[in-house]
Amino acid sequence: MTTKKGAMTSAMGWSDADHIVVRGYDLPGQLLGHVDFGGMAFLELMGRLPTADEAVVFNACLVTLVEHGMTPSAIAARMTYLGAPESLQGAVAAGLNGLGTVFVGTIEGSARFLQTALAGAPLDADLDLLAAAIVADHRARRAAIAGLGHPVHKPNDPRTARLFAIAGEHGFRGRYVALMERVRVEAERVSGKVLPLNATGAIGALASELGVPWQIARGLGVMARAVGLVGHILEEIRNPIAREIWDRTEAAVNEHSG
Amino acid sequence: MTTKKGAMTSAMGWSDADHIVVRGYDLPGQLLGHVDFGGMAFLELMGRLPTADEAVVFNACLVTLVEHGMTPSAIAARMTYLGAPESLQGAVAAGLNGLGTVFVGTIEGSARFLQTALAGAPLDADLDLLAAAIVADHRARRAAIAGLGHPVHKPNDPRTARLFAIAGEHGFRGRYVALMERVRVEAERVSGKVLPLNATGAIGALASELGVPWQIARGLGVMARAVGLVGHILEEIRNPIAREIWDRTEAAVNEHSG
Amino acid sequence: MTTKKGAMTSAMGWSDADHIVVRGYDLPGQLLGHVDFGGMAFLELMGRLPTADEAVVFNACLVTLVEHGMTPSAIAARMTYLGAPESLQGAVAAGLNGLGTVFVGTIEGSARFLQTALAGAPLDADLDLLAAAIVADHRARRAAIAGLGHPVHKPNDPRTARLFAIAGEHGFRGRYVALMERVRVEAERVSGKVLPLNATGAIGALASELGVPWQIARGLGVMARAVGLVGHILEEIRNPIAREIWDRTEAAVNEHSG
Amino acid sequence: MTTKKGAMTSAMGWSDADHIVVRGYDLPGQLLGHVDFGGMAFLELMGRLPTADEAVVFNACLVTLVEHGMTPSAIAARMTYLGAPESLQGAVAAGLNGLGTVFVGTIEGSARFLQTALAGAPLDADLDLLAAAIVADHRARRAAIAGLGHPVHKPNDPRTARLFAIAGEHGFRGRYVALMERVRVEAERVSGKVLPLNATGAIGALASELGVPWQIARGLGVMARAVGLVGHILEEIRNPIAREIWDRTEAAVNEHSG
Repeated sequence: MTTKKGAMTSAMGWSDADHIVVRGYDLPGQLLGHVDFGGMAFLELMGRLPTADEAVVFNACLVTLVEHGMTPSAIAARMTYLGAPESLQGAVAAGLNGLGTVFVGTIEGSARFLQTALAGAPLDADLDLLAAAIVADHRARRAAIAGLGHPVHKPNDPRTARLFAIAGEHGFRGRYVALMERVRVEAERVSGKVLPLNATGAIGALASELGVPWQIARGLGVMARAVGLVGHILEEIRNPIAREIWDRTEAAVNEHSG
Repeated sequence: MTTKKGAMTSAMGWSDADHIVVRGYDLPGQLLGHVDFGGMAFLELMGRLPTADEAVVFNACLVTLVEHGMTPSAIAARMTYLGAPESLQGAVAAGLNGLGTVFVGTIEGSARFLQTALAGAPLDADLDLLAAAIVADHRARRAAIAGLGHPVHKPNDPRTARLFAIAGEHGFRGRYVALMERVRVEAERVSGKVLPLNATGAIGALASELGVPWQIARGLGVMARAVGLVGHILEEIRNPIAREIWDRTEAAVNEHSG
Repeated sequence: MTTKKGAMTSAMGWSDADHIVVRGYDLPGQLLGHVDFGGMAFLELMGRLPTADEAVVFNACLVTLVEHGMTPSAIAARMTYLGAPESLQGAVAAGLNGLGTVFVGTIEGSARFLQTALAGAPLDADLDLLAAAIVADHRARRAAIAGLGHPVHKPNDPRTARLFAIAGEHGFRGRYVALMERVRVEAERVSGKVLPLNATGAIGALASELGVPWQIARGLGVMARAVGLVGHILEEIRNPIAREIWDRTEAAVNEHSG
Repeated sequence: MTTKKGAMTSAMGWSDADHIVVRGYDLPGQLLGHVDFGGMAFLELMGRLPTADEAVVFNACLVTLVEHGMTPSAIAARMTYLGAPESLQGAVAAGLNGLGTVFVGTIEGSARFLQTALAGAPLDADLDLLAAAIVADHRARRAAIAGLGHPVHKPNDPRTARLFAIAGEHGFRGRYVALMERVRVEAERVSGKVLPLNATGAIGALASELGVPWQIARGLGVMARAVGLVGHILEEIRNPIAREIWDRTEAAVNEHSG
């Protein structure tokens, strides 16, 4: 196996005195000034540059995930910066550590069941049957369905309609989107609850349309939130609130604790 | 002070059932489909969307920083993924923790002395005198000058010429770039060494041209490398080398250790 | 619920001008000079100080986990320190991020199935039947059994015999240890493979004997390895090898790539 | 240099089928059951087991640092656990990232100036002169003196008196402690402020007495706080408050933000 005895290889990039090559492209000559940050992110994941249509859909997914306000992840980053202002990277790292199964990581969950269900399914597969199977499987495991439900954006998440519209304009509103929508309908029918198709569910479907493997789909959120957390640290530098959060929390805890 | 008693405020964003607002823009209506990932990163740092010229220069800086091959940061991320494959975000966080004063963080160093030197300096300030003062100050402190020197790219870093050319084409080859170039000339003259103006030095200068405060300049590297590290994890999933790096390291250490 | 509207409380500790109280004890008067680091760790987890017998068994578990040589976690910490030597804490944090389901986290896995199986089981429950059920469940899920198997320490892990002997001397070789041993026997019988009961499996059983909830059992490894990683960073300061690991890895990858 | 071409070596430990050796000791035979967690931490840093007197002083330093209540570091860990409950290690890593120059890292600062001042100083060196020089140097750099001052514990930190008393009983109240006390007196005289010698200052002095290099002194805090953070995560599991902290923070920010 490669991992035991074989030679170690990587296609990420290499350089010598005269060359800097990234994913097969000459960085100064072919990438700088020719590709933007979103296109570069696509190149890192897909090994090629995006088409114009892919770029619009992929960028829309990333832009959706950058900034969600004062999230637990942003609070963790600001708390960390308060103690170690010399380590901006440590504050961002602390914030990223919280992007797990509860927040953001749900992109992986929806991408996973969508890609698993459609893997090797015929083009005329009955999406309603696939959706019913996905919902039934989750109910049997008493598991929440990733990508459905939102505490605030009810009955619909305004980001989802916009993302799917953009996908439609650019030829990426395909079977993964259709299956995700049917999963939502079936889940609402079976549970009797209002279950908005939220932004991470929409992005899980669009990442699948773009060919992003579910195993790395969470990475879209990690990339995007890293950008957002740097923004939070800059605001924390100019308008610090971390100490106030600390003071209020400590006071609230001391008030009621033995 | 805001941090002690005052109200806590943030301008990052907010949402309710019907609205999702990021940095003052309606996310679904004004940002999705209208701004790309690089423009969103600019918005997070500057509080406004970039002009077309700003976008090109800013994106070029980020693209330069995304992928540097098998760096210590990438090795740390892959080692972490080997032990905790369920936590992609933890592997990226581990890799980001290494973006300190030795690697990437040097963006902050060059942006800092450039912005400090030109803060309140008259428009006709003598850049040669400022450069001489910067070099002399570093020599007095026996400190290396951030942004100068490279183990491989000698006598010139091919990224720097390209970045400065792009900046020139878009009206951002101004005093910060000129001062950085003079610092390089003066440092080579005084030290008698070949000191290429490396990519982080160039980006420190361009970030200054764009108005990015030096206090957050390292964040450009953190944002970009987060993208690159997600790329490395995907390659590690498909073509794992972490265990081989571990095996070879352990064998090499055991061979020569008591 | 406490998490939504209720008052926030904590029993970890509090202080004012004259008092510093940790888990109900006066830190200067009742803990400093009276309890050691292992006893303090026990207090943090159990909310009380250990008995003399508990202290011996608990300390033996932690001591076992501190240092495992040049592990992926140690390599990640050294790689991180190479880039950010100003952030010792970031290097340790990077190393800890790798203590997931593959390494160390296996303590949680064995503690979980042991505590789940014996929860509410009568004192005279047939441990062989419980072991058979645990092994059958893992085989049905095609899941490896946490705490069994070791690449080097075959047929037996020398740490396990010693840990169980210490537990026996101090009255903690009870049903969890007995069940873990039976799980090993049954797994070897059914699989026909040699499956040593490894150190993390032994510690999962002893943590259960001590009353450590499986949900936090991985924390024993996190505590202990944090100590070990600080040791690795000190050695890296005095006898650096991170750059050599980087150089060799980059050279090996470049030799066969692109 | 070792780091460029030489062989890679490590004295941390090694193992084969029959042996597990840590810092030169047989782990099962010589360490398990014979040394506690504090002694193991000493071994990792000093390369030998502590004497009985060293063990008492070293353990007292670690015990002091384990638990400080609802600190920013603890809040960051709990926020991270809220998003990624599957990654206990990531929550602890997030908390550790905040142990920088503002909190805990101050151990390094005091150990550094104490060890630097007494390096090669004659046994009869005038400590008042050394203290005056340390204070003058900090004032010239407008730098706060690490280890002095506390927002709550005025005029004296109760941990310091207790730690120094323990050190005295065990033969470790030497020149480093004396110099730290003189630095405090001189700093109060020159500034006219009340500047308690706080716990991290006391520990910086005691770490110096024990021979812990200042470069790793922060590691005592990292080790100890890792233990404390695991304790906080267990309390968060049983009595969660992270969501409430998030809700209150978000509400407070939204109330006053545009």
